Amino acid sequence: MSEDNSGTVNPRITPIFLAGGTGTRLWPISRTSRPKQFFSFAGENSLFQEALLRVVGDDRYDHPIVVTNESYRFMVAEQAQEVGVNLSIILLEPVARNTAPAIAAAVIAGTSDGHDRLFHILPSDHLIGMDDAYRAALDTAEAAARDGLLVTFGIEPTEPATGFGYIEAGSRLRSGAHAIAGFVEKPTAERALEMLNTGVHSWNSGMFLFYGSIFLEECEALAPEVCMAARASMVSASKDLDFLRLNEIEFSNAPDISVDYAIFEKTRRGAVVAAPVQWCDLGSWDAVWRNGERDKKDNYLSGPITVGDITQSLIVSEKHHVVVDGLDDVAVVATEDAIYVGRLSGAQTVGAIVKRLQSDAATRPLTETHKTSYRPWGGYSSVLVGERFQVKRLFVRPGKQLSLQRHFHRSEHWIVVRGTAEVQVGEDVRILSENESIYIPQGSVHRLSNPGRISLELIEVQTGSYLGEDDIVRIEDAFGRT
Amino acid sequence: MSEDNSGTVNPRITPIFLAGGTGTRLWPISRTSRPKQFFSFAGENSLFQEALLRVVGDDRYDHPIVVTNESYRFMVAEQAQEVGVNLSIILLEPVARNTAPAIAAAVIAGTSDGHDRLFHILPSDHLIGMDDAYRAALDTAEAAARDGLLVTFGIEPTEPATGFGYIEAGSRLRSGAHAIAGFVEKPTAERALEMLNTGVHSWNSGMFLFYGSIFLEECEALAPEVCMAARASMVSASKDLDFLRLNEIEFSNAPDISVDYAIFEKTRRGAVVAAPVQWCDLGSWDAVWRNGERDKKDNYLSGPITVGDITQSLIVSEKHHVVVDGLDDVAVVATEDAIYVGRLSGAQTVGAIVKRLQSDAATRPLTETHKTSYRPWGGYSSVLVGERFQVKRLFVRPGKQLSLQRHFHRSEHWIVVRGTAEVQVGEDVRILSENESIYIPQGSVHRLSNPGRISLELIEVQTGSYLGEDDIVRIEDAFGRT
Repeated sequence: MSEDNSGTVNPRITPIFLAGGTGTRLWPISRTSRPKQFFSFAGENSLFQEALLRVVGDDRYDHPIVVTNESYRFMVAEQAQEVGVNLSIILLEPVARNTAPAIAAAVIAGTSDGHDRLFHILPSDHLIGMDDAYRAALDTAEAAARDGLLVTFGIEPTEPATGFGYIEAGSRLRSGAHAIAGFVEKPTAERALEMLNTGVHSWNSGMFLFYGSIFLEECEALAPEVCMAARASMVSASKDLDFLRLNEIEFSNAPDISVDYAIFEKTRRGAVVAAPVQWCDLGSWDAVWRNGERDKKDNYLSGPITVGDITQSLIVSEKHHVVVDGLDDVAVVATEDAIYVGRLSGAQTVGAIVKRLQSDAATRPLTETHKTSYRPWGGYSSVLVGERFQVKRLFVRPGKQLSLQRHFHRSEHWIVVRGTAEVQVGEDVRILSENESIYIPQGSVHRLSNPGRISLELIEVQTGSYLGEDDIVRIEDAFGRT
Repeated sequence: MSEDNSGTVNPRITPIFLAGGTGTRLWPISRTSRPKQFFSFAGENSLFQEALLRVVGDDRYDHPIVVTNESYRFMVAEQAQEVGVNLSIILLEPVARNTAPAIAAAVIAGTSDGHDRLFHILPSDHLIGMDDAYRAALDTAEAAARDGLLVTFGIEPTEPATGFGYIEAGSRLRSGAHAIAGFVEKPTAERALEMLNTGVHSWNSGMFLFYGSIFLEECEALAPEVCMAARASMVSASKDLDFLRLNEIEFSNAPDISVDYAIFEKTRRGAVVAAPVQWCDLGSWDAVWRNGERDKKDNYLSGPITVGDITQSLIVSEKHHVVVDGLDDVAVVATEDAIYVGRLSGAQTVGAIVKRLQSDAATRPLTETHKTSYRPWGGYSSVLVGERFQVKRLFVRPGKQLSLQRHFHRSEHWIVVRGTAEVQVGEDVRILSENESIYIPQGSVHRLSNPGRISLELIEVQTGSYLGEDDIVRIEDAFGRT
């Protein structure tokens, strides 16, 4: 938790990042186990890391709170660490209950020291141009929030988009913000065209700024069941390493409702700040295309690609060489194990296809996991699966250690191909260097550590009658997984 | 060589299969190191195996001769063995010189015992419906060939195709065959439409039937340089295991010319037998689509695929799950390392794209080799390539043995995952069973054998500063590769 220099109110804003969403329309890159916010779509950093970096460079902000879920907790912690951002709290939602309960719980957690604060609610998967317009809007929003208002950020529309909700601005307030005259659901094309030039309609960006105390007052008044469940789940929350895990039974009682519905559409203390900000909800492949760098023929290309005569298309490949020729308006996205090919302008329909894949046991894993899985100690990818064997590539971060474990149904051969491994088998401990190998017999207690200063990489060849991830007995674990 | 029961002339027909071609328009499946004829496009067998099986079931045929090149020799031998076909000769062209020199050399080889024979020249990558029409045409062609004619097979056209050459039939001969009135190059659409209903034009199928003696007489007269080079390359041919390797210097002197140009367009002893045969030169993806089984929406689907709203498309995937939605007339072909996406009706342009890939050192390997390489002893695929390591999966056929070899720049770890291995390292010989491993230090002389009755599979992890296939010194080899 941050220092507090000002008595009861911290002068700095605490950002709250919502990082628990999945993003099915960006399949096959985005999957349940590693959704889009943890991927990079341009440059080195993931969307979540870019979102973090947007606030840490700015003096007005304090250390961020992140709301995420069980599955993404290590990714959140590691990605923050990678870009050198200290998080104040990583709050884990035990079940998904939309934005109202998540924000309420985060605000309660962020004010649990008895000090009121300004909070800025931020999505972790949007692109925002950090220009003067954005900073001016932030100044106005802060002023309005300090006037005791719940501020929502509107984006001045640049096209008659039908994929967003709209906010209608009312009278101008002292701070320069406007009262909220009303909300418009995702509109028809006709209605969107009308709203484009009214000067009072803006896109609902999902960003909010307010005092914690005022948010909670309004929440108590307008959505008491949200507030009650959030408070109860915080009272019996459990601390686990760097994570604060909300009580599952209590949090499950919260209604599944967005903060817009629960509070902003009802409150009389709302305000809107609309600005011509470069903003994008990177929700589908056409949005990635629209916001990415394109070649002369209007193609977005990322990865090893050869194109013939193609225009207005998006080609993304993680690994395989992709050749595309003679097509217009096509999206081709290739990952290590799945390939999507569709009309780019129809990219909204990817969600429906993913639902179909989820409904079949054979294809469901393609929507859940990637070939590479991340763990607190590093990660692994399955390289080859045979009838009674499997080859994996493991990497262990410097100083990290896997759990002390054993398997009932498989033996393992480990070959170090980079770095140094410390391997315990039974009571024996050995150091292995590059090009050395060891055999872990079925049933034997073993542990792998990286005592070195560079990443350890090894090839694991498993043999046995059953090779599932669940054939593991953890005897001791630094990450609380026994 | 087959038995000969009839004095100087064998009553049976010797098939000569031309199996040396590459097939770039079926990229990424077809590649230089393993072109389309060695792949299966429907069912278990490859096109080449299907071609072999078409003749071995028929009493009129003798053991086949196959003309191929150095790179495909083991594939030809193995694929023939797999379907239980005994080849009489596997003739290796040291350089590619089109069909006239290849056929001349095969005919010379097939008559080198002093006995004249009937030869049936067959492509190894076409689909042919073995129906009554085909068999009747074959009877007529055989009768015409026994009358001393050089017979070419025409296919009665079913559409105004512009991708084939046409043969024009002249007067009817005694056998039922017709004299050849002329040849038409690949025609314009207009000309193709005219020829569709003349009743005298047929597609040039590239199949021929004739006596060896008559072919060689005509070759001497009409294309003496072809005949001379073929004869000279046979005189100094070298026998190598089951292969007959033509002399490179002599064979290189042959002009690069097709048998149509060199002989059939000039000879007065030509005849044509045209029949309404189901026939297809499986030369491009649209041909695969046209000849394959299609669903209600006219899609050809092969492999793990989920389709949304697509029509008249071809989707082929070797391994990855492919999802295609919202497109019409598209070809998607995914192999282990490359993906092609294009317009199906524009499938003829794949050849041009492959030329581009060939012109760049980075992408050239994608046109040459597959991830899985076949060797006389079995094969291997590269599973993972790292900075100073590589993981391969090897399989060794029962009873086979790799060369006695060593590497200067890499060590190898072998882990047996199926079957039994006999491993020699230095002077030591060890037997390894499933789940056992061994280490081959850099520089040590070693050899791998499969002494068992089932296929041996092992995972090889190579480590070292240089991991190229050419870091190998073969000390002893059963396949003549030292």
